[in-house]
Amino acid sequence: MEFENRSIVSVNQFDLAGLDTLFDLARRMKPVAARKARSKILDGYILGNLFFEPSTRTRMSFASAFMRLGGQVNSTTGTVNSSLAKGETLADTITMIQSYCDVIVMRHHQLGAARDAAAYSSVPVINAGDGSGEHPTQALQDLFTIIEERQGRGVNGVTIALVGDLKFGRCVPSLVILLCLHAGVRFLFVAPPELQIPDPILRSVRDQGFEAIRTSDLDSALKEADVVYWTRIQDERIDDRNVLAAVRGKYVLTRAKVESCCRKDVVILHPLPRIDELHTDVDSLPNAAYFRQAANSILIRMALLLLVLGKEADFDKSLSPAPDQGGAAELSAATPPAP
Amino acid sequence: MEFENRSIVSVNQFDLAGLDTLFDLARRMKPVAARKARSKILDGYILGNLFFEPSTRTRMSFASAFMRLGGQVNSTTGTVNSSLAKGETLADTITMIQSYCDVIVMRHHQLGAARDAAAYSSVPVINAGDGSGEHPTQALQDLFTIIEERQGRGVNGVTIALVGDLKFGRCVPSLVILLCLHAGVRFLFVAPPELQIPDPILRSVRDQGFEAIRTSDLDSALKEADVVYWTRIQDERIDDRNVLAAVRGKYVLTRAKVESCCRKDVVILHPLPRIDELHTDVDSLPNAAYFRQAANSILIRMALLLLVLGKEADFDKSLSPAPDQGGAAELSAATPPAP
Amino acid sequence: MEFENRSIVSVNQFDLAGLDTLFDLARRMKPVAARKARSKILDGYILGNLFFEPSTRTRMSFASAFMRLGGQVNSTTGTVNSSLAKGETLADTITMIQSYCDVIVMRHHQLGAARDAAAYSSVPVINAGDGSGEHPTQALQDLFTIIEERQGRGVNGVTIALVGDLKFGRCVPSLVILLCLHAGVRFLFVAPPELQIPDPILRSVRDQGFEAIRTSDLDSALKEADVVYWTRIQDERIDDRNVLAAVRGKYVLTRAKVESCCRKDVVILHPLPRIDELHTDVDSLPNAAYFRQAANSILIRMALLLLVLGKEADFDKSLSPAPDQGGAAELSAATPPAP
Repeated sequence: MEFENRSIVSVNQFDLAGLDTLFDLARRMKPVAARKARSKILDGYILGNLFFEPSTRTRMSFASAFMRLGGQVNSTTGTVNSSLAKGETLADTITMIQSYCDVIVMRHHQLGAARDAAAYSSVPVINAGDGSGEHPTQALQDLFTIIEERQGRGVNGVTIALVGDLKFGRCVPSLVILLCLHAGVRFLFVAPPELQIPDPILRSVRDQGFEAIRTSDLDSALKEADVVYWTRIQDERIDDRNVLAAVRGKYVLTRAKVESCCRKDVVILHPLPRIDELHTDVDSLPNAAYFRQAANSILIRMALLLLVLGKEADFDKSLSPAPDQGGAAELSAATPPAP
Repeated sequence: MEFENRSIVSVNQFDLAGLDTLFDLARRMKPVAARKARSKILDGYILGNLFFEPSTRTRMSFASAFMRLGGQVNSTTGTVNSSLAKGETLADTITMIQSYCDVIVMRHHQLGAARDAAAYSSVPVINAGDGSGEHPTQALQDLFTIIEERQGRGVNGVTIALVGDLKFGRCVPSLVILLCLHAGVRFLFVAPPELQIPDPILRSVRDQGFEAIRTSDLDSALKEADVVYWTRIQDERIDDRNVLAAVRGKYVLTRAKVESCCRKDVVILHPLPRIDELHTDVDSLPNAAYFRQAANSILIRMALLLLVLGKEADFDKSLSPAPDQGGAAELSAATPPAP
Repeated sequence: MEFENRSIVSVNQFDLAGLDTLFDLARRMKPVAARKARSKILDGYILGNLFFEPSTRTRMSFASAFMRLGGQVNSTTGTVNSSLAKGETLADTITMIQSYCDVIVMRHHQLGAARDAAAYSSVPVINAGDGSGEHPTQALQDLFTIIEERQGRGVNGVTIALVGDLKFGRCVPSLVILLCLHAGVRFLFVAPPELQIPDPILRSVRDQGFEAIRTSDLDSALKEADVVYWTRIQDERIDDRNVLAAVRGKYVLTRAKVESCCRKDVVILHPLPRIDELHTDVDSLPNAAYFRQAANSILIRMALLLLVLGKEADFDKSLSPAPDQGGAAELSAATPPAP
């Protein structure tokens, strides 16, 4: 697949070669993200960071990714004060804002907004979430994390248990699409019936020849899984109080549960934020990969921004040693302040 | 006129020589705005981008203008969380914020706020809108667009039809003042009686010897106009429903209207955003200059910021080739994403 | 005290040597803050500027401090759209955001939030206010201003009158702690009984051997004071209307009051914003140090950011002459615009 000057609105745009290109570049971002090396390859470039639907974390992550490569960021949050609120079309808004920047990252509450923006923009648009649609960089960082955590064993043949709210969440369907680019993946969809994976997705997975099981038997699924992708069950979506009470206790991942059910080398993911469905006593297990998964967002976004701006070929020669060799990633935890 | 260390609060500060200086520099900004050339002349400078009254687009435009020249931007939006909300005077606010930056851009809901801020500030203040007062950079980009679109034929002797809400909008009065610096301009003020140009403005134009006509005969005005400046009629300002119904249909510019009434080489402007008073079928006409007008905001603001910071003389020698020659302006429209 | 990789959550972390290190470096920041010299020592560094509780001025001050040294700033305001609003813990939020930046500045409405954040963060955290807790950089800039304004006479033996709301304000207790690191300071706490300095603070000061007096006799206190630290009396905190009426007139500082009561060389401070408790006719007195106090915030924050990032040793050699020698601080007041 081609990246240069292309908008990225959906995981469906990716093939295996595209993933390889992206993930290889993401790995080369590590020293820059950790400030052990310096690149100013985006010096002079401006990111239009348009969060018409606010999301502090995703906005900050894209902004830092761009800044780490030397670019500058022009952000907006919400639509209350924008011309969109006055009735301007998204087409007009994008037509204007594209003259302010070299690449656009956009989150919008409407399904399809990213595709519309891409159609009107002369600069690449990266979809950072369009309502009930997609948030492709989340799925990309999820898959990248699986690959990195499995340390060379790859994705082919992996058994993944996807647990929790598989019906309303936007993360799982996109990750499933990317996993289906790999051979022999087994899908265990673990959820209460009310929140199970929708039929069209299950059918699509099976039609492509993958084994896919719907189950509410969490313990059995955990026993088989190489990768566990945990998500939050949103209580407000289950009407029956009896069901809710049963579900609530079951779909909480604790250290005891991991130790009693999971394989030794299981990789545990969660898109975060978590509320109470993933106990903090899991955090110190080496299998708990969710904070590394979160940190990988920077690598994926740095790489993707470079690719759509056509700067990949110049990246390696843009590197210079950081002025100090002790970057943020090497700092030991800051000494707690004096009491 | 002098620019260095001067605040810009009103179009009344400009004379023809000042406009020439500004527009000449704005033209020299084009390669930098399009990222075909690079300047870091504002490296180390900080813009205080104070939008006490929010305006996403104007804020982003000033920010990008400053970033394109290598400067950094420190923005704020709204007053809810500021000391102004606690009862601090604007004088105190500006006295403090001037120590954080090298130049201030300010939008404020109160008429006269920009003048007050300029009086208290030791760094230049650029008015980005002060309530019912002025928004001088809008008028400057409007006039600049007329000049650019007329390709050497200049402004002298031009017939301009100003259409729509001439009473409450802030754009028209400022543009009229700038046009009156040129010889032989003819003004056709086209509006329903409720929204016609106020008497003092009409009188002032005529007292300076210009021909100026108030009319509601849109078609005749369009036939004569070299330049059409279209604005939105804000329905809520017309009480009489019968008048409103009549006005609504008439003050909508469509491609058919342009083709049936306007001169072949008419220049069509609109300050944007538009709602429904300017049909999108006009967009593809070569006469539709409103998106170029919007993009010119960056050029005008880059030039004005340089001038008040006294950096104009150093600009040409600050230029270097961009690392890649294909800047944003040269990108063909991004390929639409795979379906 | 050590600064490198340390979080700064409380003035209690400081000793005299630490203050000396900080203030010496703050003085060396002056040419950079005034843009007479240029340092890009933080080029490539990112500040996470987290104002979960909004504060326009403090946010902008930290941002400019970081930008002046060549760094980039990634800001957020409020928690409405953040994962904190969805129920995420501060620990999780900080664990994620630390991977986006090299140092964090945080304001949060909860007492103790800064200490919590510091405990979870692998990058240094600077407390910019944690509810009813501390705002240490304010106290540091207050003490620094006293030292600078006294021009070599130092703090030892100084008599300071702290006036106004000594009970609810967060500035006074922190400044008192820092002053107690110096010998022979005399404290005059001047307030109506309802707003007097709390017992534990008074006791602590006296237990350390300092003379400390509670009084409502403003005039006598002003006569003795080398330094006057004026604060706003928040009317809403005094229930009794008769008391309020009496207090209101008395706790307003005017030029006449300064001239009739104060020593010739008194230093007048105020943390700002002021409402009406400090008359603008005081502003032109050479003793009115409060705007210089406000401007000193940039120096202190620049210095503190460098120290926790371990960059102090490299600072002097990072300096280069500014491209133009006339920096912002040297500009005469901008000529008022033409009428």
